[in-house]
Amino acid sequence: MLVIGDEILSGRTKDKNIGYLADYLCDLGIDLEEVRIVGDHKARIVAALKELSRSYDLVFTCGGIGPTHDDITADAVASAFGLKLVHHPQAVEILRERCARRGWELNEARLRMARTPEGARLIANSVSGAPGFIISNVYVMAGVPAIMQAMLDALAPELPTGVKMLSATVEAGRGEGDIADWLTALQETHPQVRIGSYPYHDGKRFTTRIVLRSRMPEALERALSDVESRLQTG
Amino acid sequence: MLVIGDEILSGRTKDKNIGYLADYLCDLGIDLEEVRIVGDHKARIVAALKELSRSYDLVFTCGGIGPTHDDITADAVASAFGLKLVHHPQAVEILRERCARRGWELNEARLRMARTPEGARLIANSVSGAPGFIISNVYVMAGVPAIMQAMLDALAPELPTGVKMLSATVEAGRGEGDIADWLTALQETHPQVRIGSYPYHDGKRFTTRIVLRSRMPEALERALSDVESRLQTG
Repeated sequence: MLVIGDEILSGRTKDKNIGYLADYLCDLGIDLEEVRIVGDHKARIVAALKELSRSYDLVFTCGGIGPTHDDITADAVASAFGLKLVHHPQAVEILRERCARRGWELNEARLRMARTPEGARLIANSVSGAPGFIISNVYVMAGVPAIMQAMLDALAPELPTGVKMLSATVEAGRGEGDIADWLTALQETHPQVRIGSYPYHDGKRFTTRIVLRSRMPEALERALSDVESRLQTG
Repeated sequence: MLVIGDEILSGRTKDKNIGYLADYLCDLGIDLEEVRIVGDHKARIVAALKELSRSYDLVFTCGGIGPTHDDITADAVASAFGLKLVHHPQAVEILRERCARRGWELNEARLRMARTPEGARLIANSVSGAPGFIISNVYVMAGVPAIMQAMLDALAPELPTGVKMLSATVEAGRGEGDIADWLTALQETHPQVRIGSYPYHDGKRFTTRIVLRSRMPEALERALSDVESRLQTG
């Protein structure tokens, strides 16, 4: 995932899209492997896009596809793939209809939102019209959470989905330092299950949540049973 | 900034450290230029660390410094810099005292939290004892927000601070499509000010916040005055 926008890096806007996409992909059985956040800076966006697009099966971007001068995602995506930036005819049509219906002028700024790399396919935007787009393995979405979420719903049916990751959470009721030794041994006994250990403060003291994750229900069940037995022995 | 942890990428934990660090650095006059999130995967952490450490003046990491098998940040930082991983004597002492005071066993798992690359300096942890550390231009902190925040307070006095970025926000009261053309022109007139435009839904319709940012108070004032005049002409 690539999040694009000065406002996230300055702290002015707190990102809401990373956690949302993480949950969404998890439900689809797609592993989110890496996230990057860069500002509205073309060279940085291009560099990140090239690297992510080469390294992973799918790349999701959000941010920088509005009508203003600081919205440069479409330019950067076109550069990253060595493609021409064009006004996508179908996108122009969507904007024209929307402007006509609302009595808005389809000015140059609004037309910016129809620009895509040549050959892109559109992602429908049921919230505010201006579409996202798909080029190669990159899915380009808006940064406004409600629009990003609508675009994700629109493109989800065409995503290659995997086997859903299953998980089980156990409250350890004690600090990480008291369970780490045997948890390491249990991880070695259950290679098909990824065992994570997450400390948190419950208001009185630090305690731990143990999270087991696997795509194999029986392996998960066996590991869970071992963790629970071990916790009962103290 | 490098955020380390499977739990963020799976969506199970929603990150709270990025926005916090972004605000914190902004107040210190340090620009946050890029954020990456990777899982508990040594090769990925090492690759990200090398690239970020080479590309930027300062790198802040959070996550993966606890006592369990999935806490591999110290190992990865040592690998990234080609350094030996050692038990830091001062860190061992801190953990020993804390365990003695609480009647805990200073077992092998707890001792893991004293491991740092050779030559690291410690970052105090006023919340739960186990320290972070500094090596080269990398600041290694915990992922639990309260601890990360305490570590940040501890290391802040030694950070090279810049001139604070000033900002002013103007409610445009209309959609981006209606202001984008003249906003582009204003950006060109005010090169010392970074003008951002952020659409949001106010419950009834999409409207826009214009955010002006500059390290020069007078330049900011002039740009602000121009934006406000332009908005009044409709």
